[in-house]
Amino acid sequence: MSRIVYVNGSYLPEEEATVSIFDRAFLMADGVYEVTSVLGGKLIDFAGHMARLERSLNALGMNKPEAFDELLDIHRELVTRNDIDEGMIYLQVSRGAAGDRDFVFPDPEVVKPTLVLFTQSKPGLADNPTAKTGIKVISIDDIRWGRRDIKTVQLLYPSMGKMMAKDAGADDAWLVEDGKVTEGTSNNAYIVKDGRIITRELSTDILHGITRAAVLRFAREAQMTVEERSFTVDEAQQADEAFVTSASTFVMPVVALDGAPIGDGTVGPVATRLREIYIEESIKAGV
Amino acid sequence: MSRIVYVNGSYLPEEEATVSIFDRAFLMADGVYEVTSVLGGKLIDFAGHMARLERSLNALGMNKPEAFDELLDIHRELVTRNDIDEGMIYLQVSRGAAGDRDFVFPDPEVVKPTLVLFTQSKPGLADNPTAKTGIKVISIDDIRWGRRDIKTVQLLYPSMGKMMAKDAGADDAWLVEDGKVTEGTSNNAYIVKDGRIITRELSTDILHGITRAAVLRFAREAQMTVEERSFTVDEAQQADEAFVTSASTFVMPVVALDGAPIGDGTVGPVATRLREIYIEESIKAGV
Repeated sequence: MSRIVYVNGSYLPEEEATVSIFDRAFLMADGVYEVTSVLGGKLIDFAGHMARLERSLNALGMNKPEAFDELLDIHRELVTRNDIDEGMIYLQVSRGAAGDRDFVFPDPEVVKPTLVLFTQSKPGLADNPTAKTGIKVISIDDIRWGRRDIKTVQLLYPSMGKMMAKDAGADDAWLVEDGKVTEGTSNNAYIVKDGRIITRELSTDILHGITRAAVLRFAREAQMTVEERSFTVDEAQQADEAFVTSASTFVMPVVALDGAPIGDGTVGPVATRLREIYIEESIKAGV
Repeated sequence: MSRIVYVNGSYLPEEEATVSIFDRAFLMADGVYEVTSVLGGKLIDFAGHMARLERSLNALGMNKPEAFDELLDIHRELVTRNDIDEGMIYLQVSRGAAGDRDFVFPDPEVVKPTLVLFTQSKPGLADNPTAKTGIKVISIDDIRWGRRDIKTVQLLYPSMGKMMAKDAGADDAWLVEDGKVTEGTSNNAYIVKDGRIITRELSTDILHGITRAAVLRFAREAQMTVEERSFTVDEAQQADEAFVTSASTFVMPVVALDGAPIGDGTVGPVATRLREIYIEESIKAGV
């Protein structure tokens, strides 16, 4: 069955969903995106994702799409039309199609942003069996651009990183810069040592994860100790536990790094507990 | 008059030229490109651009588009159909549209690369009056990813750099990393001091310019001294001349850097001579 997707005001079968070859996301990676999860048909952390979208647009001097204030309705319409119980909604805004290629930004009065949304149905997302066994990661050099806090579509290297992990028999990669882990290819990275949850502090070096913010809040509410600081691969390999967070994986345990088991090489209690809390609280707060 | 452009085997009016919203260049900047100039209806340095295209594809493990061996014909057809005397032909290959979004590369047996070409008519390209007055550049931090030798569509920061230059009353920006100039936003950077032409050596830090290679060859043939090494902004401001090279600007003199005049602040003889030689020899060798 074909999905119904949204492109610039129209709901279309996915096969008919196209953008101009002059769209600046296609020609110059001049676009930003968000991924919002759906659990039980409800949107998870929706307000957080839309706030970050606005932040990304502002950071790039990009106008909001005309339908910005209708984004909740559009998300809900896509959930309904595609009968999504569990899954994700992908949203992308680009600076639009100026009708030609030019490094200079087009006049925002003339060229309107492109807005695209589509669903990805993932039955079993909350009850993902991988969360019981954990994932294995490798470390790779972080050679991405310097503004990883802006959620742009410049995802070629993260994509290459996933392929490097796959080729190494692992599930994902952690990026390392100046000897310290920045984050995962599409998630924030954490270790747990002596009961303390350690994750890199916010800066332009990492994505300001919406799931990260929620998980750290829940952790603190549960009286867990959180340390926001960077850590090395060595330190991670000596940790008791490790995990990643993202909108689509929630809290996902990491059980090995570069072939070395983390802790006893199985899923630990802190990651398990945080995943439970996050999913439970997020479903309650879903819209 | 509407251009005729090329998309995956079809010649189309530009208004009808679209790609799927699932195209990986649109969603993940997973695409590479080339720009070939046209002078007198002939393609300039065509073989060099196609060799670099192949290098970019190989570096990303991307298949050649099916029409790879017909690219000369396609370029010529577009020149003819759009009556291009002077201008550029833009070519982009992406990893294709997998029908969904996934960081993992799609199976290349199933998902074919997307091939897009379009023309940009620029009458007066060879006799560009700006070459007589030169351009002013500013220096900005180089925060791009680490593989600038691969000509990907990750051009958001170069585009932002052009806007920073514009906002500063300049024409373009030079990128600086670890105190040294890497290159311009869309060109290679050079200074001239005591008759020596100085430009950064090839590495993953800069684009391996096709025009750069030709200009350095012509310079050496003309008994000029070429030093391939990096230089600082300070050194550039103390130089006798400066210039940039690219497929669309050929050799373009730079007369100021961060507000300081270079040499006497006018176009110098080395840049002028190299521009003449490059255009003359390239037209002779055009195909």
